[in-house]
Amino acid sequence: MIFTKKQAKILSDIILHRRDVRGNNFLSKKIKKQDITAILNAGIHAPSVGFSQPWKFMVIEDAKIKNKIYNNFKKSYDKSKKHFKKRELYSSLKLEGIKETPLNIAVFYKKPIKKVLGQTSSQKMGEYSVVCAIQNMWLMARSLNIGIGWVSIINHKKVQKTLQVSDEYKLIGYLCVGYTKQFLDIPELETLQWEKKKEFEEVVSWV
Amino acid sequence: MIFTKKQAKILSDIILHRRDVRGNNFLSKKIKKQDITAILNAGIHAPSVGFSQPWKFMVIEDAKIKNKIYNNFKKSYDKSKKHFKKRELYSSLKLEGIKETPLNIAVFYKKPIKKVLGQTSSQKMGEYSVVCAIQNMWLMARSLNIGIGWVSIINHKKVQKTLQVSDEYKLIGYLCVGYTKQFLDIPELETLQWEKKKEFEEVVSWV
Repeated sequence: MIFTKKQAKILSDIILHRRDVRGNNFLSKKIKKQDITAILNAGIHAPSVGFSQPWKFMVIEDAKIKNKIYNNFKKSYDKSKKHFKKRELYSSLKLEGIKETPLNIAVFYKKPIKKVLGQTSSQKMGEYSVVCAIQNMWLMARSLNIGIGWVSIINHKKVQKTLQVSDEYKLIGYLCVGYTKQFLDIPELETLQWEKKKEFEEVVSWV
Repeated sequence: MIFTKKQAKILSDIILHRRDVRGNNFLSKKIKKQDITAILNAGIHAPSVGFSQPWKFMVIEDAKIKNKIYNNFKKSYDKSKKHFKKRELYSSLKLEGIKETPLNIAVFYKKPIKKVLGQTSSQKMGEYSVVCAIQNMWLMARSLNIGIGWVSIINHKKVQKTLQVSDEYKLIGYLCVGYTKQFLDIPELETLQWEKKKEFEEVVSWV
């Protein structure tokens, strides 16, 4: 299959307009089953080291479970505040959308039980494959005008306990998935001057 | 920006037709500067924890450096053979395209010097952001009909020494980038029955 310049431009637009969406921008509107399937399928067709496909996706709609995960987030968030000098700004941020979104997706790495091709020099490659899956899902969701927020301020082991997932697996990402009021033109943390956008020349070198 | 169903379908096609390209499928044809820039820009616009943008991209065209990296791969590859029962099949695989491609890109994670928003509960989030950047680059390249192969059978610390990159950084991915003879319809390791494709129901659960 040969892609055209116009098609490449569409991908570029999707990449540039993807945002990490938080609770203040989510709608509770239900997501159609076929769209959830499309998002999961994007994950399943990510690259994986040695074609190991070491992923497991758990779609969570149960309100009781979401409440438990939210309480987990809350504890981790309260503890994290002490690390930041701009505490007022940090405390004002809404950093998750666990309860606001119609569904959450927990994405796990399945630890290998045999040697995996490509993973002999770098054990991390398995986890990295799962992250590639998440990025595919993020873009696919954006193309369907659905937002994703990755919640990282969370006790991963406790999430896993809440979801009754065994130690053969490791939680990589906890995603909030839902329609949005808007996709911000500029990332919120850039607008708030939490961090500056790095210039191309700052992060690219040539040898 | 609202995307249409047709545009979402294009993303889905790019995702489904992306391959991990190896040396036997690469062409040495040069890549236009504007396409290299588009691929790097896709990386730079990946999500990053706390908008930390903790990445560094090193574009490598120098043949001497590529030779050194190839020798590094070769040693790691020879050592890895003992792990696999299907040794003949494993030894017949071409698992990199370091010298065949016009350019390689080493992607590094820049370790934080201060606390990063979102990284307080999970230190790995920084590295995961860099993996998201790599997946964006992989898809962008595919949309430009350019292949990428991620070389993981490699001594990461030695690569970093060869590239004279300090310990403030950590190598996440070493990519071979070039035009291809073809993009395989089916992943090579699936065709060779190295691993079976997992079914949707096998990796997705609902709660």
